[in-house]
Amino acid sequence: MAVYTEVPDEALEAFLAGYDIGALLSVKGIAEGVENSNFLLVTESGPYILTLYEKRVKAADLPFFLGLMEHLAARGINCPLPVKNRAGVALGELAGRPASIVTFLRGVWVRRPRMEHCAAVGEVLARLHQAAEGFAITRPNALSVAAWRPLFAMSAERADTVSQGLCSEIESELDYLEARWPAALPFGVIHADLFPDNVFFLQQQLSGVIDFYFACNDFLAYDAAICVNAWCFETDGSLNITKSRALLSGYQKVRRFTPEEVAALPLFARGSALRFLLTRLYDWLTVPPGALVVPKDPLEYYKKLRFHRHVADASAYGLDG
Amino acid sequence: MAVYTEVPDEALEAFLAGYDIGALLSVKGIAEGVENSNFLLVTESGPYILTLYEKRVKAADLPFFLGLMEHLAARGINCPLPVKNRAGVALGELAGRPASIVTFLRGVWVRRPRMEHCAAVGEVLARLHQAAEGFAITRPNALSVAAWRPLFAMSAERADTVSQGLCSEIESELDYLEARWPAALPFGVIHADLFPDNVFFLQQQLSGVIDFYFACNDFLAYDAAICVNAWCFETDGSLNITKSRALLSGYQKVRRFTPEEVAALPLFARGSALRFLLTRLYDWLTVPPGALVVPKDPLEYYKKLRFHRHVADASAYGLDG
Repeated sequence: MAVYTEVPDEALEAFLAGYDIGALLSVKGIAEGVENSNFLLVTESGPYILTLYEKRVKAADLPFFLGLMEHLAARGINCPLPVKNRAGVALGELAGRPASIVTFLRGVWVRRPRMEHCAAVGEVLARLHQAAEGFAITRPNALSVAAWRPLFAMSAERADTVSQGLCSEIESELDYLEARWPAALPFGVIHADLFPDNVFFLQQQLSGVIDFYFACNDFLAYDAAICVNAWCFETDGSLNITKSRALLSGYQKVRRFTPEEVAALPLFARGSALRFLLTRLYDWLTVPPGALVVPKDPLEYYKKLRFHRHVADASAYGLDG
Repeated sequence: MAVYTEVPDEALEAFLAGYDIGALLSVKGIAEGVENSNFLLVTESGPYILTLYEKRVKAADLPFFLGLMEHLAARGINCPLPVKNRAGVALGELAGRPASIVTFLRGVWVRRPRMEHCAAVGEVLARLHQAAEGFAITRPNALSVAAWRPLFAMSAERADTVSQGLCSEIESELDYLEARWPAALPFGVIHADLFPDNVFFLQQQLSGVIDFYFACNDFLAYDAAICVNAWCFETDGSLNITKSRALLSGYQKVRRFTPEEVAALPLFARGSALRFLLTRLYDWLTVPPGALVVPKDPLEYYKKLRFHRHVADASAYGLDG
């Protein structure tokens, strides 16, 4: 839930005057998205999403994000398409922040994903990986294994206030993952945040993928592991293997995992569980009182991490080697 | 900013199946409105607003609010029109809460109202007062003078933590207003919350009025005083008499105030300033940390109250008797 920035009327009008999308008919702040301020614009030519990039998004990364959406949309991925202003530029400034307008995607995100949703997500993830090939800009994953120890250092002192023993458990997990993280596996552009609220469905059909503001270059199978964590656990913290099998099979309908990727999947599931545990832990401990965002429960990912630690191989996720 | 209730997919689908508005294409929580959860729905037949009524709105009052919007819309006020389901009913239940769908109004609310906006608001307020005549249901104003002392009792102890001396000042104000509040003046349905975020404009023309969830029966001139407080003060706390003159003239283009109403205006301005001071003070002192709503500054209305206390007569607002 997020609208961090109020936009003065005159500033919005001046901004929109630079675009060829017709007069403004409505603008409403959207209570979704955690990193940026999002508004649903309706103009004479239809609905759009206006995003103001808040300080957690680096302005230098915006050409990567906007260019990637354009690249993917041109290759058949149904994602928001950045709208260029009359000067041919997709990135502007509004209310002192970098700002962009993108096309509006129809669809509704699924609050309680079922097996068929997981299958569709796996498939679109693989299509996204393939469609991103040839994209000219690269962006290293700022939240991969090398970043986790410094990230944890900002929460370590107070980690045990969230759960007794959490601090030492994360430390041993960092040792384990840093020692085993692979160096060479199929690599490319990953979405890195393909949670249920970033995937739209219409009448049970996947209709679009949004929010590319964590996208980066990393191991493709790591992205699949993020999705297993995000889509295939029940609310009681148990893995639903029917869902993870569906997700991974959906992926392989488009792109087969190599044997090395299959072998790395449990490690990637552990690593991605730790990555979300760490960012949520940091947010949990630092979000100020009165903030507009309710921090997400870090312990959800602590439970997932503990599950993956007992996994022997990828068959635990329904993936046969 | 408010979305208090998550709506499960299946529940929303089942709810919409009762309506004849086409299949759902999109649903997004709206970061506006403080009392209820609001969603912008897009269906095959267009955009709508879905509202889930949270506990601060009494279910027994909903027929008044929904019936009033229907009554006003039928009489030419551009306000949301409640959509009836196939059973002919505008009020349903969703996610354990009373829920309704209303039509979507085009327009943008004005962050920095100018004189011409104030004139348009005065005019639409008078038109609303006239259009509401004949509406069959009545609802006493639960936040009028009789409610202020018990409301203040819930904040009195901690009032001085917000501003030193606030407690005794409010008490003497209550004495003053209770002793002088009029008994008989033109009375009818008032909006009671016609703040800038509840009035839409399109290309400088007033395009609609929303949020009737404080509407009630009370003195018509009191509603005008609420608008003077809401629209005509600068951010530094000073009254802009050009704006208040425009607002009150706009009102009188449609409906003339009686001499008694003109005489009562300073008192109503004091009373309505106190009413918003009291509710904001209560919210300020009781909103829990981590709430999704940032409480509004009560001291804004403290300053307005102090201004009105030094007003001799309605000419201070640009209204000639």
